[in-house]
Amino acid sequence: MLAFIRRLAEYEKEPQAVVATESDLLRDGFGDSPRYFCLMAESDGAPAGFAFYFHTYSTWVGRWGLYLEDIFVEPGFRGRGIGRALLVELARIAVREKCGRMNWQVLDWNTPAIEFYRALGAKMLPEWETFRLAGEALERLARDG
Amino acid sequence: MLAFIRRLAEYEKEPQAVVATESDLLRDGFGDSPRYFCLMAESDGAPAGFAFYFHTYSTWVGRWGLYLEDIFVEPGFRGRGIGRALLVELARIAVREKCGRMNWQVLDWNTPAIEFYRALGAKMLPEWETFRLAGEALERLARDG
Repeated sequence: MLAFIRRLAEYEKEPQAVVATESDLLRDGFGDSPRYFCLMAESDGAPAGFAFYFHTYSTWVGRWGLYLEDIFVEPGFRGRGIGRALLVELARIAVREKCGRMNWQVLDWNTPAIEFYRALGAKMLPEWETFRLAGEALERLARDG
Repeated sequence: MLAFIRRLAEYEKEPQAVVATESDLLRDGFGDSPRYFCLMAESDGAPAGFAFYFHTYSTWVGRWGLYLEDIFVEPGFRGRGIGRALLVELARIAVREKCGRMNWQVLDWNTPAIEFYRALGAKMLPEWETFRLAGEALERLARDG
């Protein structure tokens, strides 16, 4: 799982951004109340890709949803429908768990992924901008008010 | 809480999008494992605004985070620092819970909110596009593969 996380961060041009460790992932995903879930795809007995997700909540729908944090297929395994199989399985989980929706994000230069998602029936929501507060800025706001 | 959710959807020009009911919110937020959390701001004893959030997970940080789904201050109570107080309290919760980050989204035409978030030290991530799969398209993918 961590190997795929690192491979995806390389693809997204931020390899140094991954500070997660195996013990972080073990602590947070394998206890009584897991904070995330993960599908692993195998092909010919080898790990070929993964989809990492957690639950969100929609105030409009009044229902929880799935958020796909990471999806990645090893380059050597592409073109075999593995990415599609991962998304189909996620859609099945979403329907089974009565999730109102699935959301995810993609980098705006990742045209092949954007076309792939559109072909599956997903809609891009270009009017929504994402904000992040982290690190020193988060600590400063908490400390100084 | 539901009144504020509806007021915010009106402000976001999608009042008809709120299908959530009081019983949805009671079921999902007040059991043994709440799916969301909510801060209510009061001013002069009246409900003045709210911040509705849940937990995410960052594969890069190897740590959970806070996602601010909704924040809203009643127009009659604006200019008193209530929005800032809600965000400061969220930042304190994030630091106390050892969250790596806080994320949220804003509509791209909502300039006052964008300037407000920037002034608090938050960073906009314009390179990330949001996708959603919901309703009939989600069911179709789950059914037909």
